[in-house]
Amino acid sequence: MPRSRRDRGHQAPRTEERPMVDARSATTGCLAGVRILDLTQFEAGPSCTEALAWLGAEVVKVENPKGGDPGRTSFRSGPGQDSWYFLLFNANKKSITLNLKSPRGIALVNDLARKADVFVENFAPGAIERLGLGYDAIRKVNPGIIYAQVKGFGTGSPFEDNLAFDMIAQACGGIMSVSGERDGPPVKPGATLGDTGTGMLLAISVLGALYRRKGTGQGERLEIAMQDAMLHYIRVCFAAQATSGRPAERAGAKLASGGNPPCGIYPCKPGGPNDYVYIYTSRANPAHWHRLLQVIGREDLIGNPQYETGLARTEHEPQIDEMISAWTRQRDKNEAMRILGAAGIPAGAVLDTGELQNDPSFEKRGIMQTIQHPACGPFKMPAWPVRHDGAPPPVKPAPLLGEHTGDVLGAWLGLSADDVKGLRRDGVI
Amino acid sequence: MPRSRRDRGHQAPRTEERPMVDARSATTGCLAGVRILDLTQFEAGPSCTEALAWLGAEVVKVENPKGGDPGRTSFRSGPGQDSWYFLLFNANKKSITLNLKSPRGIALVNDLARKADVFVENFAPGAIERLGLGYDAIRKVNPGIIYAQVKGFGTGSPFEDNLAFDMIAQACGGIMSVSGERDGPPVKPGATLGDTGTGMLLAISVLGALYRRKGTGQGERLEIAMQDAMLHYIRVCFAAQATSGRPAERAGAKLASGGNPPCGIYPCKPGGPNDYVYIYTSRANPAHWHRLLQVIGREDLIGNPQYETGLARTEHEPQIDEMISAWTRQRDKNEAMRILGAAGIPAGAVLDTGELQNDPSFEKRGIMQTIQHPACGPFKMPAWPVRHDGAPPPVKPAPLLGEHTGDVLGAWLGLSADDVKGLRRDGVI
Repeated sequence: MPRSRRDRGHQAPRTEERPMVDARSATTGCLAGVRILDLTQFEAGPSCTEALAWLGAEVVKVENPKGGDPGRTSFRSGPGQDSWYFLLFNANKKSITLNLKSPRGIALVNDLARKADVFVENFAPGAIERLGLGYDAIRKVNPGIIYAQVKGFGTGSPFEDNLAFDMIAQACGGIMSVSGERDGPPVKPGATLGDTGTGMLLAISVLGALYRRKGTGQGERLEIAMQDAMLHYIRVCFAAQATSGRPAERAGAKLASGGNPPCGIYPCKPGGPNDYVYIYTSRANPAHWHRLLQVIGREDLIGNPQYETGLARTEHEPQIDEMISAWTRQRDKNEAMRILGAAGIPAGAVLDTGELQNDPSFEKRGIMQTIQHPACGPFKMPAWPVRHDGAPPPVKPAPLLGEHTGDVLGAWLGLSADDVKGLRRDGVI
Repeated sequence: MPRSRRDRGHQAPRTEERPMVDARSATTGCLAGVRILDLTQFEAGPSCTEALAWLGAEVVKVENPKGGDPGRTSFRSGPGQDSWYFLLFNANKKSITLNLKSPRGIALVNDLARKADVFVENFAPGAIERLGLGYDAIRKVNPGIIYAQVKGFGTGSPFEDNLAFDMIAQACGGIMSVSGERDGPPVKPGATLGDTGTGMLLAISVLGALYRRKGTGQGERLEIAMQDAMLHYIRVCFAAQATSGRPAERAGAKLASGGNPPCGIYPCKPGGPNDYVYIYTSRANPAHWHRLLQVIGREDLIGNPQYETGLARTEHEPQIDEMISAWTRQRDKNEAMRILGAAGIPAGAVLDTGELQNDPSFEKRGIMQTIQHPACGPFKMPAWPVRHDGAPPPVKPAPLLGEHTGDVLGAWLGLSADDVKGLRRDGVI
């Protein structure tokens, strides 16, 4: 199904040589001028503030002078280097160090909060209040602030004081119960839904609150719990449960929401762990099935009542899977995807992270970008995947620990170089 | 680790009887006054516009007069009823019918676009341009519009003309390669990351663009591809790959990013398919491991060098898993979670959708809300999980097909009841 080339004139020209990341609006962010005071660590909070940084907000990460965000060092990449993990979740941010065990450090957080539009934290339950930086304290110095928190379990939950990490949220939020082989144990998806999945929902609410605040100056308190956030990503399973009356089940590579064969992965040459192609035919378009029969050389079955409807195919799923496999086994996954896709059948090769990392299309289109990090060297990493006027925003390297302490204390609070030197001497920064 | 009750004064009172959904700001949305013209169907697009609707935008869903969004009927719930699936992804929206095969229908879309702040679509590749509603056409009638599209594969990708659905994106975007048992085939997580995961990222960019537009009036074109969006959710796997030099692998219930034992699910009584508790001890806090040894009655091992560091535990993972299982097997998952959580150890029961649906905490806190749908009756569904000043926004039922056609054509375009009657007679709406 070719589409008109006419409609592409407004986009950056597609050339092999020129990455698309330098298009018009990508260099100016939507959120230019927005100040985020970022007291987050690891992933759930940092993924949220990084999304805001990618859209142009000034995100100032407040870190412990002794080592900073534990994400810098908990996942080692090399001696004395920040981890790749840290680089991935903290691009485009600034870093300042502040000693939160020092009263002057806490006072500086208050001073910075007075100048900020948004305050974000994801400490363990109760920690931010024990520091004297809870919402009631911060809104006293800045009633218009948007104060955003990530919790493991929601306020009012029987588990509100419990610790949580990504995998705990995926267990308690239903994700694992619907992921895995049909008769096997629950699986934790490799995607960090408990962290980044939560961070994205909080980013949406922060942006909604910023939009209102721009008109009214109104502050707001936002809170998201990782367990609660998980329900949002398995709503099709709640639909399946409402229909069947039973909890949604695991279904391997097929659909937890119920079958619509063909739907699943089919084995390809040469038989490695990810040598499969996913094939699906839509409920809403019966033509997909007919196209598939043509591609696999089984035109003889077009119109055959044993296979013509979704219901009939559900009854003959093993036969269908076998006839498709007979075709896919003769091909590698990329070839299978090319042929099926070109014929208008929804199909996709199962690609691993190495194949994705090395696929030139991602780099050419700016979906992956290479940063030059002063300590870690060049690193190609996934960028914000939404294209704004043709290109994703450019990625800037994650900051070194305390890289912007002087700059930010100067620009936000008017402190002089001497003031900063004094704070450093006194162990405050 | 108790936290101060003092900091809760600003929230709605916590009583057993009163759900938290009627707190102050929840009834007025952050995005009040924002008009979204929504030409999306199924899930990726609708999940995006629904998030905007939950935050208070006026989302007008444009549907085919003959059956509407195929999501209404592709997943049946009952005769003549909209599917639960549809209800889940279209809450708080309005619905109008417009015949896009009629020139007058297309003209009305243009008229509505002139009045809209945002236009969103997720048709198959090229379809919106063939309708004459591509970006170049729409920005002629409204240069300040934010025009947002969901694609399966990005513009410039070798697969840009291919069809995609959630599972195709999860295959081609790396998610499946890192989900499943260590020696088993790839698994498709029950979470619909390809759809809702993509929709959330687009919502963030729409909101960023709206923020800028409020100041400058500047329009913008946004595009996200489902395949590209998947990379965003497996960035820990790219970090693992950067460290190891090999593609990230599947790890069952453990971490694709590498072990830090104990980390995984442990079997509980009575041994059903989801009778497990997830237990983790943080890399950043050695106390977790000591607390765990105390809970399971193995204080004797505190300080034992065989288990004291993450590296030592990695070498003795089978022994660790066995000693923990010996304790969990004596308990049901809820009891295990209560005991471990209260001791300050990150732990969570693997909960299924039935347990989540019936957990009173979600309803009490407004994370799940019951709608009264005029045709489908009462339906308890997950709401937007971020609490704005103490409560998630209230859920209003998804619209009936064309429920708001007259209202919206009147309010946005000034059409009279007679005009609307004429359009209906002529098959335009």
